[in-house]
Amino acid sequence: MNTGPSDVLPAAGLYEVVHRRRDVRSQFTGEPVPGDVLARVLAAAHAAPSVGLSQPWDFVLVEDPGTRRAFHDHVRRERDAFAASLTGAEAERFARIKIDGVLESGLSVVVTYDAERGGPAVLGRHAIADTGLYSVCLAIQNLWLAATAEGLGVGWVSFYREPFVRRLLGIPDGVRPVAWLCLGPVTHTETVPDLERHGWRSRLPLETVVHREHW
Amino acid sequence: MNTGPSDVLPAAGLYEVVHRRRDVRSQFTGEPVPGDVLARVLAAAHAAPSVGLSQPWDFVLVEDPGTRRAFHDHVRRERDAFAASLTGAEAERFARIKIDGVLESGLSVVVTYDAERGGPAVLGRHAIADTGLYSVCLAIQNLWLAATAEGLGVGWVSFYREPFVRRLLGIPDGVRPVAWLCLGPVTHTETVPDLERHGWRSRLPLETVVHREHW
Repeated sequence: MNTGPSDVLPAAGLYEVVHRRRDVRSQFTGEPVPGDVLARVLAAAHAAPSVGLSQPWDFVLVEDPGTRRAFHDHVRRERDAFAASLTGAEAERFARIKIDGVLESGLSVVVTYDAERGGPAVLGRHAIADTGLYSVCLAIQNLWLAATAEGLGVGWVSFYREPFVRRLLGIPDGVRPVAWLCLGPVTHTETVPDLERHGWRSRLPLETVVHREHW
Repeated sequence: MNTGPSDVLPAAGLYEVVHRRRDVRSQFTGEPVPGDVLARVLAAAHAAPSVGLSQPWDFVLVEDPGTRRAFHDHVRRERDAFAASLTGAEAERFARIKIDGVLESGLSVVVTYDAERGGPAVLGRHAIADTGLYSVCLAIQNLWLAATAEGLGVGWVSFYREPFVRRLLGIPDGVRPVAWLCLGPVTHTETVPDLERHGWRSRLPLETVVHREHW
């Protein structure tokens, strides 16, 4: 095995960031993200791999309190809709779970997917249309890890309807909102994921999701 | 700003990995991935965030040469199908581009999405069904960065039809193949992405994909 590169690459540091990363809702301080830090985090997102080098992502930076409040009101309604689908112990557990930090974090980053970018012949997409969408998610994870390494928190909010976000931010037809991310300084990072601490679900042992040669 | 965590977290190392990561086709040595390294890489993937902590991913490790050759034959046919859609200079550029390292790398990792996992009430998925698929992609990027930090190469092959891969690996109905990844030791890592070196596309300036307050 060619062990050369692993001797000089910071594997331990990478793993520290990967395992320290949390989905943050409650710990945002509301302080701003310094411009140079934000630039590094966005550059990390933009360095993600993409199908056919299409780079089909965009990042809308939302600080305006009115916009964030309008989104938060929408999220609250969608939270109620999901809550209404639950019963018994599950409904009680969900009632204790905070699902967003849209008002507490001073910055939201909305990540979108433009299927037209790099087209019409996107190398590697002819057989699987969703590969463009997959690329956007790889950029999101780069952003998330970079923010974690910078000591910032990220929270992905998914209690929304895509047409609402498209109208709110003036996103063109044909461009799809993929993620609404809250980003900002945090008081601290939890060791255990919120949903595990609140008894919603537990992490699975790794060996249950690994198969050899066949499923 | 709470700068405490960023003083101790290895941001520089994270960025080094993010920017060094490449999509590898030609540099696999064929040597095996040591078991302890593979375990760390898979654990990093499994530590990704997931909607409602559903952890909807599975990893099928494929070493069998017969299976990899069958997949490679399929990829070659899909490559021909894409090539037939191109004309002129684009066709000439594509002819020079290697699209997979399935035979050269001794290990493939096939990543899948199980929409039933953690259901039926997946917290955060009621409004956007695709968030489960997004979670799988976050795990893939964790895997990719961990492998890079370990000095290994990863190449995502997407020239395939999902039903073929499902049949080849015995993946159950309702579970979707998301990525076929070649993983293994490499001779070196290129500085510039293959598609850019071959003139297929260039990287966009970051500022062209960043918007403020609205699109």
